[in-house]
Amino acid sequence: MKESKKFLLPENEIPEAWYNVIPDMPVKPMPLLNPVTKKELQVEDLYPLLSEEASKQELNTTDRWIEIPEEVRDMYKIWRPTPLVRARGLEQVLDTPAHIYFKNESTSPVGSHKLNSAIPQAYYCKKQGITNITTETGAGQWGCALALAAKHFGLALAVYMVKVSYYQKPYRRSIMQAYGAEVIASPSMSTRPGRRMITENPNYQGSLGLAISEAVDLAHTTSNCKYTLGSVFNHVALHQTVIGLEAEKQMAMAEEYPDIVIGCFGGGSNFSGISFPFIRHNFTGERKTRFIAAEPASCPKLTRGIFHYDYGDEAGYTPLIPMCTLGHNFSPANIHAGGLRYHGAGAVVSQLKKDNLIDAVDIPQLEAFEAATVFAQSEGIIPAPESSHAIATAIREAKACKESGEKKVILFNLSGHGLIDMASYDRYFAGDLANYEVTDEEVRANIANLNIDL
Amino acid sequence: MKESKKFLLPENEIPEAWYNVIPDMPVKPMPLLNPVTKKELQVEDLYPLLSEEASKQELNTTDRWIEIPEEVRDMYKIWRPTPLVRARGLEQVLDTPAHIYFKNESTSPVGSHKLNSAIPQAYYCKKQGITNITTETGAGQWGCALALAAKHFGLALAVYMVKVSYYQKPYRRSIMQAYGAEVIASPSMSTRPGRRMITENPNYQGSLGLAISEAVDLAHTTSNCKYTLGSVFNHVALHQTVIGLEAEKQMAMAEEYPDIVIGCFGGGSNFSGISFPFIRHNFTGERKTRFIAAEPASCPKLTRGIFHYDYGDEAGYTPLIPMCTLGHNFSPANIHAGGLRYHGAGAVVSQLKKDNLIDAVDIPQLEAFEAATVFAQSEGIIPAPESSHAIATAIREAKACKESGEKKVILFNLSGHGLIDMASYDRYFAGDLANYEVTDEEVRANIANLNIDL
Repeated sequence: MKESKKFLLPENEIPEAWYNVIPDMPVKPMPLLNPVTKKELQVEDLYPLLSEEASKQELNTTDRWIEIPEEVRDMYKIWRPTPLVRARGLEQVLDTPAHIYFKNESTSPVGSHKLNSAIPQAYYCKKQGITNITTETGAGQWGCALALAAKHFGLALAVYMVKVSYYQKPYRRSIMQAYGAEVIASPSMSTRPGRRMITENPNYQGSLGLAISEAVDLAHTTSNCKYTLGSVFNHVALHQTVIGLEAEKQMAMAEEYPDIVIGCFGGGSNFSGISFPFIRHNFTGERKTRFIAAEPASCPKLTRGIFHYDYGDEAGYTPLIPMCTLGHNFSPANIHAGGLRYHGAGAVVSQLKKDNLIDAVDIPQLEAFEAATVFAQSEGIIPAPESSHAIATAIREAKACKESGEKKVILFNLSGHGLIDMASYDRYFAGDLANYEVTDEEVRANIANLNIDL
Repeated sequence: MKESKKFLLPENEIPEAWYNVIPDMPVKPMPLLNPVTKKELQVEDLYPLLSEEASKQELNTTDRWIEIPEEVRDMYKIWRPTPLVRARGLEQVLDTPAHIYFKNESTSPVGSHKLNSAIPQAYYCKKQGITNITTETGAGQWGCALALAAKHFGLALAVYMVKVSYYQKPYRRSIMQAYGAEVIASPSMSTRPGRRMITENPNYQGSLGLAISEAVDLAHTTSNCKYTLGSVFNHVALHQTVIGLEAEKQMAMAEEYPDIVIGCFGGGSNFSGISFPFIRHNFTGERKTRFIAAEPASCPKLTRGIFHYDYGDEAGYTPLIPMCTLGHNFSPANIHAGGLRYHGAGAVVSQLKKDNLIDAVDIPQLEAFEAATVFAQSEGIIPAPESSHAIATAIREAKACKESGEKKVILFNLSGHGLIDMASYDRYFAGDLANYEVTDEEVRANIANLNIDL
């Protein structure tokens, strides 16, 4: 392991505005639809679900820059700006001419990038006089981040956590509880979709789609309560652009510009965060960076999914989103990168993929863990299983550079650390993990059953 | 939670030399003794055990500043300098006029300050041509740090981990394995003291003292193998002074100087690291800072122990150290701050305590976890159970300021985060944890049985 070179920004370089990519897109994303009327979604349609400010941001297709409130920037200062690191140790192990950089979002107190959006979502609720918020969480990264943000702004929070994770990842549950949040295993009896599932299938272990339905139902049936979410929606991707905006300045400090930008991909939040501030320079023709979304082979919405209007949740409560989707009832294999087990991609990323402005790769589980181990031993940081998909992709590209002799500059987002995921590493070291693949036929069959009548 | 203000130093402000407090002490510590001859220990006596450079540092009582090798500073750059944080959120919750600062050593890739000494210890072994190193670990913080340092310098590492922790804290074991280290539950059959214990007491759950004996025995019986350790010894405290040296500069950035400096206390490494750079200004009469070592009530070597020559390990392999001790065979209650379950204090701290130049307090387990929860909810970081003893002490002092109206400046060291300790938090939230106290009579009876013949 050779010295890793950090590029650090002072606190006053935390961005003052988020970057909204939609105004710059060559082809705008298709509109969200009201799930009941199937008509184009109006901002008022979102008010029962989200804070008014989040609703407006979700449908904002005109303002390129959206100011970050002072209260949000103040809380960002707990850990931001995050370091950009030249991964010299990894380069040495791979013996590659490529220069590899990573943006280290694992340094937040909850260990992932999720806090970037949890803070503004909680803040806008508080500002509006909301007292209670709800959300869902899979592996628990989003739930932990929102629990901290909710405590900060004095909001009561109920988190629906996918049942299999609730029991398999008890320590993320403990972290949420340490921050004062209520955590409910989903499916639960506390909501209509949860009760329905438990009645029909008492042994169901839960899914992210159902947990979303439960949280949305609670928000709809509780006074002064709003729903928040950690990915997929445009305003979440917007908040995450602080990652790429900082990284752009830090790459300039390193006197380089990325040829390739990589993020792991669940619903799109960290990939969008690292990519959007760079992709705008592709739109102007100034740059020709390649953007790669790294998804798990077991949940390949971008590489094998179909571009189609679909719901964000299992029960069909969310707006209809134009997405690369495996179908909202898709049940991915129980891989350890729980944060990537989601059926669809957000509207903006889906449009960019449709227009061939970004690429995607699917990474088998074992390759992700192998990459994680190489990274831990060469850079010292144990990565989250989710982030390991980005690392595996960076390693593929760096090896290709070794073959070709090209000195490409590769930037990936280290979305989180894996210190709460050591049980998964144990199973990998013990040889207990497997690869899972999804075939095109399975995806087509699943989508055919969706029966979304527009 | 109000905004927490970070004070950050650039990389080039990582100290270029460690501070050796011994030359400045008004009364020098008594010499270490050879455990066999009981004569004053010579540097050659340490060579079979430690690297030559560590041996020289251990007995260096004359050089105030010891240069940090470039290779060590390069690796420090992975995460150092660490932030100093004004804990405004905590101040607000406590409604205190005190200003509370903490040095955040939890930002290292292994989550604690232990890496500060693991790096130079591994480096000096490598430089000397050593190929294999061994150590012990209790809760696992030291073992994780040394595993990363050993991998960096290409050394093979065997870690003896206290058996009860090996099973209770499996994820720190996994982290060590992810970095490529061998981890053995202690007592084990691989060493003479381990075999003896297993034969006499097959159900023995291990102790730090016995794990040290096992590691030392392996070092003595393996070719080209040295022992390393994470606390107690002078050279470990020396390496940890990077904490206080950085903090001193950062307090100057904040335009304040601490009236009180606090560190939790196991064998003394993090307490020494934060304290020694400040205490030198007390020695010159320039400042009157109060230094408080925060130990657990269940293992109160400084508040209830006896100043006496004692061994660092159970089998009596280490040099005899003039220490505040509960007796090297003392078996502390199984509290969750595993890193503080050690019978004695290092020679320098013991002398400072004897001369009333530092204070100590004993914190009950439940008070430590209560403080940890208040801190997590107000500052966003879940602290290690060990560090929570320092937080509890800072809270006591801040409350005293509220009573008296004094605006004291309090600085404590946050030695590590608690993300791998969530099982302990779970038990605390469930009401399963208890307080343990040790009486003066128990300590006297234990010491009387020591029979150390000098």
